[in-house]
Amino acid sequence: MSQAQRAALDAAIRSITFDTSRPPAELREGFRAMTAGRPIPPGVTITPAEIGGRPALAFEPERVTAEGTILYFHGGAWVVGSPATAQALTAGLVHRTGMRAVSPDYRLAPEHPFPAAIDDTLAAYRDLLDQGVPAERIVFAGDSAGGGLAVTTMLAARDAGLPLPAGAVAFSPALDATLSGESMTTKAGVDPLFTRESLGQLLAHYVAGQDPRQPLLSPAVYADLAGLPPLLVQVGSNEVLLDDSTRFVARAAAAGVDVILDVTADVPHVFQSSAGILDEADAALDRAARFVLDHVSQAVLA
Amino acid sequence: MSQAQRAALDAAIRSITFDTSRPPAELREGFRAMTAGRPIPPGVTITPAEIGGRPALAFEPERVTAEGTILYFHGGAWVVGSPATAQALTAGLVHRTGMRAVSPDYRLAPEHPFPAAIDDTLAAYRDLLDQGVPAERIVFAGDSAGGGLAVTTMLAARDAGLPLPAGAVAFSPALDATLSGESMTTKAGVDPLFTRESLGQLLAHYVAGQDPRQPLLSPAVYADLAGLPPLLVQVGSNEVLLDDSTRFVARAAAAGVDVILDVTADVPHVFQSSAGILDEADAALDRAARFVLDHVSQAVLA
Repeated sequence: MSQAQRAALDAAIRSITFDTSRPPAELREGFRAMTAGRPIPPGVTITPAEIGGRPALAFEPERVTAEGTILYFHGGAWVVGSPATAQALTAGLVHRTGMRAVSPDYRLAPEHPFPAAIDDTLAAYRDLLDQGVPAERIVFAGDSAGGGLAVTTMLAARDAGLPLPAGAVAFSPALDATLSGESMTTKAGVDPLFTRESLGQLLAHYVAGQDPRQPLLSPAVYADLAGLPPLLVQVGSNEVLLDDSTRFVARAAAAGVDVILDVTADVPHVFQSSAGILDEADAALDRAARFVLDHVSQAVLA
Repeated sequence: MSQAQRAALDAAIRSITFDTSRPPAELREGFRAMTAGRPIPPGVTITPAEIGGRPALAFEPERVTAEGTILYFHGGAWVVGSPATAQALTAGLVHRTGMRAVSPDYRLAPEHPFPAAIDDTLAAYRDLLDQGVPAERIVFAGDSAGGGLAVTTMLAARDAGLPLPAGAVAFSPALDATLSGESMTTKAGVDPLFTRESLGQLLAHYVAGQDPRQPLLSPAVYADLAGLPPLLVQVGSNEVLLDDSTRFVARAAAAGVDVILDVTADVPHVFQSSAGILDEADAALDRAARFVLDHVSQAVLA
């Protein structure tokens, strides 16, 4: 659709120096600066909140037209980021669905390695259930590491005997801490942001010497995916993480899960965050919103 | 969504004896009888036509609300079937999109083995272009072998230097004449309709002793997929053909193609033909229609 927009985005990302060997504090500030200023769709109100014992951001659309809650997990390789660095994405879903969202500020590595993040996101989900939100009116969503958390939090919820949410949306999810996808090599250089090496440096903080071959660290390869609710996985074709998605979806399909893999050509990691300047980003968020509304037992409010 | 509906459909299919070792003439009559009586959505007019030098059926919605043409290829393992046996599927898309469709009666094996079918479907596409329909207003669609033809006709068109259509929709496509997918064994018995053996018997008529490791016989494994337009592949999780779709989509994504893999859990081959009695079938056709309208440069007519 937008060859010029895609080329501009690729060049913009390549112009950023993202040295993953730097200390986490520096990386966090760099990521904050990189994501600041992304436009928020009109009418969405963002307020500080708390969920599952952690700080959070709550998102309210101008008019609530669909019951339910999006539980959004931000990206940042489990090392950087916050609900604020993903707020344009979360607000983009809220604006398009007319649903509320809440995004927990889960603990980050290296201070809090695996499985601290999942403990926090599962606590957030429990909190929503305890507040009386029915599971079938909750959708998980997240980008990158947060897309991974959308999956692993469901697996943890299933294993804890909790009811599962209505579905999950994962943007460019990180689903394999063993970094074993073929795209790690076939998309090297094509991916303007990451390499296997840079991802390995970031992941080392989260894995922290533990065995990466665990279902909650590498669900694309090692998790039993049976029983998961409907899933939408969106990914760009210019990603070393592409095969995290293709392998995860193939295994989910084999396990009898309703799953959609939605690949946009020639766009980078979490391209949806370029909504407003990249037509494909807006189109992908539109499809994600349709998926959410298709799967949440919603009531359109007057 | 519809556990009871899915179980009923599975049982209905298992009650049918489909002995693929029988002569093609018997198989054709059996398939005709099996598909007859499927309800046509209201308002769709179906008339005999001709395209690319072959007989065809033309489909007209009650009101044309989107410009463009769906070029629909029926299923039947390249041995059985006709535009009439797929008319409920074709009409389902026409009804949901408000677009016209035309479906060629391409030549069948064993009388006309590979690549006769592709010669005919490519001729149909050329005919549409020669009639002045712009390529960007044409979408290919098809089920089973016809889903395979939607893909291989694009490859043949690309190789012939023709402009490519706006996109393609493939329902449970057959994309690997080598029958090498893991699902050939993992879904044996789960698939109520096919086995590797029965598919092999049918395919033998079409392959006719030629090397199945050719791009136009096994595009999921052997075709260069670069440059294809946006693709939607829908498949059920109860299919030995599941991995034809998962492998094809993974390779298309790796080649930088816009592609959506849309897997519905616990449903059989071409479950969309059960629209009206299976909620998942209607939902899948709704998503296919959205995809068509998203990708055809359409003008909503007054």
